Amino acid sequence: MVYDINEKRVGKVLKIGRKYLNWIQNSVLEGEITKAKFTKLKVELGRIVNEEEDSIVFYIMRTTRYSERQIMGIRKGGEDLII
Amino acid sequence: MVYDINEKRVGKVLKIGRKYLNWIQNSVLEGEITKAKFTKLKVELGRIVNEEEDSIVFYIMRTTRYSERQIMGIRKGGEDLII
Repeated sequence: MVYDINEKRVGKVLKIGRKYLNWIQNSVLEGEITKAKFTKLKVELGRIVNEEEDSIVFYIMRTTRYSERQIMGIRKGGEDLII
Repeated sequence: MVYDINEKRVGKVLKIGRKYLNWIQNSVLEGEITKAKFTKLKVELGRIVNEEEDSIVFYIMRTTRYSERQIMGIRKGGEDLII
């Protein structure tokens, strides 16, 4: 989950995201999530997000088999990473 | 590609990223890239990134078959999206 949110709402969005996912770096969270919890996450975010100003993008990978993560520089967060 | 870069260097990192990928939203780029160009991208970024302060994470999906993108709120960038 990557987000670009007006500063008035960004704290709330981060707080909701952290309930379901792991913080990776500024504006980026990641994690394994069930379909039901993903729906709950989107419902919670939907109450906060301003549809005309804010943007959240979810990249959903159904398997980690064809996915890879590479990090350059420091690792900021994400102790229990999925990939 | 998602990045969390000291403001002194963030403009340079964005400029390099845009040579190879499409801007999606603040600190997020995305695109199809060959292995050779991905290596070039990392070499260019490696000259700028401070290994103790900056962080860049690449999520590499070898196929789009098991991947999906969902957007909440406005679409900020990315006209020619891969997924």
